[in-house]
Amino acid sequence: MLKIESITKLQQHVRHLRRASKVIGFVPTMGAIHEGHCSLMRAGRAECDELIASIFVNPTQFCPGEDYAKYPRPLERDLAACEAEGVDTVFCPDADEMYPAGSATTVSVSGLTDGLCGAYRPGHFDGVTTIVAKLFNIVQPDIAYFGQKDAQQAAVIRRMVRDLIWPIKIVICPTIREPDGLAISSRNAYLTPEQRKQALSLYAALEYARRQIQAGRLKVADLTAEMRQRIEAAGPCSIDYIEIIDAHELIPKNTVQGRCLIALAVRIGKSRLIDNIEVDAGTSKS
Amino acid sequence: MLKIESITKLQQHVRHLRRASKVIGFVPTMGAIHEGHCSLMRAGRAECDELIASIFVNPTQFCPGEDYAKYPRPLERDLAACEAEGVDTVFCPDADEMYPAGSATTVSVSGLTDGLCGAYRPGHFDGVTTIVAKLFNIVQPDIAYFGQKDAQQAAVIRRMVRDLIWPIKIVICPTIREPDGLAISSRNAYLTPEQRKQALSLYAALEYARRQIQAGRLKVADLTAEMRQRIEAAGPCSIDYIEIIDAHELIPKNTVQGRCLIALAVRIGKSRLIDNIEVDAGTSKS
Repeated sequence: MLKIESITKLQQHVRHLRRASKVIGFVPTMGAIHEGHCSLMRAGRAECDELIASIFVNPTQFCPGEDYAKYPRPLERDLAACEAEGVDTVFCPDADEMYPAGSATTVSVSGLTDGLCGAYRPGHFDGVTTIVAKLFNIVQPDIAYFGQKDAQQAAVIRRMVRDLIWPIKIVICPTIREPDGLAISSRNAYLTPEQRKQALSLYAALEYARRQIQAGRLKVADLTAEMRQRIEAAGPCSIDYIEIIDAHELIPKNTVQGRCLIALAVRIGKSRLIDNIEVDAGTSKS
Repeated sequence: MLKIESITKLQQHVRHLRRASKVIGFVPTMGAIHEGHCSLMRAGRAECDELIASIFVNPTQFCPGEDYAKYPRPLERDLAACEAEGVDTVFCPDADEMYPAGSATTVSVSGLTDGLCGAYRPGHFDGVTTIVAKLFNIVQPDIAYFGQKDAQQAAVIRRMVRDLIWPIKIVICPTIREPDGLAISSRNAYLTPEQRKQALSLYAALEYARRQIQAGRLKVADLTAEMRQRIEAAGPCSIDYIEIIDAHELIPKNTVQGRCLIALAVRIGKSRLIDNIEVDAGTSKS
């Protein structure tokens, strides 16, 4: 496995791959590699000639007061995980090279970024789209892999790639969960054992709502109120949002209809946890 | 010469060129091809294997009340001009394909776009950077050519490419002028013969300032006031700005020093004309 830190060197490597008509797969990460990332790498390994992963804790997608400084950076373990998944090249750039002095360019997606996490993390998605744009231009992948766990990010990246007409296929892979249902996240590491147990209430609430919808209860306000009760009953927490939204446009619904996302963000202890599941309620029967 | 209207077809063409390791040169235009564009094409023809020009009147870079509807669109003449300059492929996409329903992504450059034309054409540069980003992703050029006449645009595009790390070399070609000095522009077509004569005051004022600077007069307020007098004396007009700015960062100067741009935008009749020249005043002697 190659480990490349310099942008220029990665560009040279990519030029070489392009000339050889290799299909390049790309998994961008902030490190702290877990089973979720590994599932993206396995998807990429299965369909690409060259699998490139990046490890870069992107400062611009953290808001003031968030966990940029203490975000886990276990580089040696991350490299071993990449190697184990058959990654060909790991790109670990410096922040100074990714954001040189005088950086002034932002890529932003409007609308899709207004609600959900966008409402609670001002500037977060501009940070995500801008760094992904840079990485896409450096890596020039044919296929890039993202996780459904970050559902809003996935929708935003898809829209950006479509709008800016990047010749890149975006693949969204299913959320990976612990055996007990907790969505795997680098931020689970901040949880105490007790909080870790409490955090099961998130997936439980999502599954509760899914069962209710499948039983024909479609009133969003009722469903989200009941989810809220269940999550608050599990222990001390602060709920950023619990929403049921259109799966494509991320627009809040009053009545569940068609393909919807049930999505939530809840702060437990020092962790801000997000999770979501998709339900297809078909068309309205009214 | 190929003429391609569909994005998908151009992408196929580019894929083929990439596989053959062709050096792709790109001249983006809004059509109404004139000697300025031709000079960009000649520069591209001289150093690239495949020369691609685009003709697309980009709606998002026109502000409300500007000349989008009446902007000249002499397509047949434009195609002939491209062919005469040895263009290999002309890309003429539809606005509906470049901006499909639900388009939500904007590329923007801050700072450099605040002053000069940016202050008078709100949203203009976001329109420029966004369409150029799309075109770059479709055409995937190795080298792209822009004119120094649009000095602020040139600085903004350079910054965007550097910041988003596109593997594209940006070449800025000198302003092309009529024999009498008027900078060639598609918008000169809106001028009456009398206004055309009056418009010579713009370049004359720029040259006046250059001579004054070379003679050691470095106080910007004095120089721009004298330029304003000269332009207003030539006939009825509305001056958007006359400025002397740092050539790289486009920051207004009080005293001419180092590499500066003398830049102006003046409305005469139905035309908004811009022009600029560079002066190098060396370092301050104070």
